[in-house]
Amino acid sequence: MKYPSSLITLIRELGKLPGIGPKSAQRLAFYLFNQPEEDIKSLAHALLEAQASLVQCSRCYNITDEPACSICTDLSRDSSMICVVEEASDLLAIERSGEYQGLYHVLNGSLSPMNGIGPDQLTIQALLGRLEGISEVILATATTVEGQATAMYLARLLNDLGVKTSRIAHGLPVGGDLEYADEVTLGLAIANRRAI
Amino acid sequence: MKYPSSLITLIRELGKLPGIGPKSAQRLAFYLFNQPEEDIKSLAHALLEAQASLVQCSRCYNITDEPACSICTDLSRDSSMICVVEEASDLLAIERSGEYQGLYHVLNGSLSPMNGIGPDQLTIQALLGRLEGISEVILATATTVEGQATAMYLARLLNDLGVKTSRIAHGLPVGGDLEYADEVTLGLAIANRRAI
Repeated sequence: MKYPSSLITLIRELGKLPGIGPKSAQRLAFYLFNQPEEDIKSLAHALLEAQASLVQCSRCYNITDEPACSICTDLSRDSSMICVVEEASDLLAIERSGEYQGLYHVLNGSLSPMNGIGPDQLTIQALLGRLEGISEVILATATTVEGQATAMYLARLLNDLGVKTSRIAHGLPVGGDLEYADEVTLGLAIANRRAI
Repeated sequence: MKYPSSLITLIRELGKLPGIGPKSAQRLAFYLFNQPEEDIKSLAHALLEAQASLVQCSRCYNITDEPACSICTDLSRDSSMICVVEEASDLLAIERSGEYQGLYHVLNGSLSPMNGIGPDQLTIQALLGRLEGISEVILATATTVEGQATAMYLARLLNDLGVKTSRIAHGLPVGGDLEYADEVTLGLAIANRRAI
């Protein structure tokens, strides 16, 4: 049987998503075909709307639909601290722990020379431009090899500039992604950070 | 932190998909945010395009973008046999086995009185309207309780009408979905069908 071309296209596009293989993509496509017209349209429009409206915060690179994100513009937060994370999703994981009241800086990844990601591919220059009036920088990159290397690189840079730098505590399981840690563990990791 | 509303909408819409929980939906949304603009647009357009163009075949209820599907319009196929399946994805699974050259009929589900699905909610009347010139109907509903009950119901109806009726062989693991069976097992199940 010849598949309709729009079905082939949909299966191919769905299969590009992380964690969705060809079989899951086909299953999703058939599932969507059986849904009411409005449900498919609202998913498509949610995608287009998100694509059109979401940008990175001009200051901390968090995900936002304003020029500056809701954390950078929140005057009740402690503007003397910056917590450095790899991705905006890591920032949200720390926010859920409720332990941290300062600002953030999203690196947009971690150092990975094997994949051609050096300091210039991350938002490190922007971080260095935000250090005035900052009393402490907390390095909350992942506990993966790349995350640890990025933390070490930043610690050396920041210590040379005389900025107090700390690393979130190894309460997190080593080798894991920040996003999957539970709130209590993440809260402890923030509370027990140590100077490096 | 306050999530941007378009992000909340996207996470909610992605979370409606089968097998995608709130955590996966959030991960997918952040993944999409990091993709090039064109990739998100092409996924959204694939959804809209599929929604607009895909319909059910007017004859066998297979998924198609024409008034009649590519199997119903294929004159080289054996038009004296109808294989009855629950969903269009089951039809594709049987096509992959390469064992069957006749036509199909998609029921759009199986009998499930608990969920309010009786004979009128399926395409059984349309099937009965297609029996002229048909020498055999193969019942390839799933080996689940509902699939078996549907096969029994149809067998009684069809035998009363004097139509030769068969059930695909129990080479399939009982209790499983047709879609996940491998091609060889499905091929054997078609070849070893038995009269009921």
